Amino acid sequence: MREALVAAAFRLFLERGYEQTTVDDIVSLAGVGRRSFFRYFPSKEDVVFPDHERCLADMTAFLAARDREHEPVRRVCDAARLVLGMYAENPSFSVQRYRLTKQVPGLRAYELSVVWRYERALAEYLRDRFAGRPDGTLRADVIAAAVVAAHNNALRSWLRSDGLGDPGAAVDHALGHVQNTFGRAAGPGPARPPIGPLPAADADDVVVLVCRRDAPLWRVVRELEEAVGRA
Amino acid sequence: MREALVAAAFRLFLERGYEQTTVDDIVSLAGVGRRSFFRYFPSKEDVVFPDHERCLADMTAFLAARDREHEPVRRVCDAARLVLGMYAENPSFSVQRYRLTKQVPGLRAYELSVVWRYERALAEYLRDRFAGRPDGTLRADVIAAAVVAAHNNALRSWLRSDGLGDPGAAVDHALGHVQNTFGRAAGPGPARPPIGPLPAADADDVVVLVCRRDAPLWRVVRELEEAVGRA
Repeated sequence: MREALVAAAFRLFLERGYEQTTVDDIVSLAGVGRRSFFRYFPSKEDVVFPDHERCLADMTAFLAARDREHEPVRRVCDAARLVLGMYAENPSFSVQRYRLTKQVPGLRAYELSVVWRYERALAEYLRDRFAGRPDGTLRADVIAAAVVAAHNNALRSWLRSDGLGDPGAAVDHALGHVQNTFGRAAGPGPARPPIGPLPAADADDVVVLVCRRDAPLWRVVRELEEAVGRA
Repeated sequence: MREALVAAAFRLFLERGYEQTTVDDIVSLAGVGRRSFFRYFPSKEDVVFPDHERCLADMTAFLAARDREHEPVRRVCDAARLVLGMYAENPSFSVQRYRLTKQVPGLRAYELSVVWRYERALAEYLRDRFAGRPDGTLRADVIAAAVVAAHNNALRSWLRSDGLGDPGAAVDHALGHVQNTFGRAAGPGPARPPIGPLPAADADDVVVLVCRRDAPLWRVVRELEEAVGRA
């Protein structure tokens, strides 16, 4: 029933345009009554985005596990991949919706509010993980925004290319960029520590840092920051 | 006239609520005709945000200078400060509007669309500055989102505290965080170069980096990345 309503709605949106299609037109084509429509969708806009509520619920449940084992930035990147999964499930539907959303300002506004809810879910998770740390809420908000922007940069490229190919690699690349910028080392296990900064010859002016070539860069940078007193 | 309409509108929004106030109520209190209202504001929502169009135009003009001298991340941070300036010009009005926007879903949606336009303006500037660089559009989108999130994190704290004190310091701190994360050295002039990485004793396994204590951290990190082959 729900799928039939979505299919009827999109057929009419593409044929007549979104604004020109009424809920009555949709239920008539689907062969059901108005009450059935509103049991599934609060408004005509909601039928355009039938899966976001489920996806938001999935994301919230995923993040609610609050598993302290997970590196927080990696965790929100994985949460963002749930959204990609929803789009990638049905490429032709996603591309149709992308085109429709670009044309109809009301749908664009609806989409912005959905994106904002995803971003808030990620930010709330990070605020909890960073609680008590300096600039915890600031870092949480900035990282959540960066994750959403990176995800959407890759997702939109895929939608603009008519949903051809696998969007997973592009989204992984984009989220990897965010993890490199904000995250700790990728793996959950303890990394081999770099050899710390040696006492410099002239401690006032020069820093000598010796590290293993394979040490995680973030650890080396942290050591370096401490050595030069800019942590 | 424009100010009188805004003042009349806000007086009614606070007295009766936003939804219960019509454009007719506003023009009647301001003592002007409906056509005067619509000369200044396309809709009732626009009277709530009377200065965003001007501020967007100011931001666009500021960024259009495309001065290659400016470090790009610093430049978009300065552009974001134009928005803060608009809010800080009239604290009590900004606080009233913040409370109103939290209560009325339609205004919240309007605000999201305005924020999105600011973010796009910053991203377009950065896309131009990063054109031809690896991951140029990705970096542009991520940094624009981070700047907006940092700015809004500080701005909202100030609005929640009833607009007391100077929001400039908090926004500077938040934007400083973004600049430290993404930007190059703060100053426009050439910094004294760090001494480059010396050949390591065992080049396969260990990197020795010698640098001046006062060298900009980003330069040291870049040298380090090149030395370990992860640039």
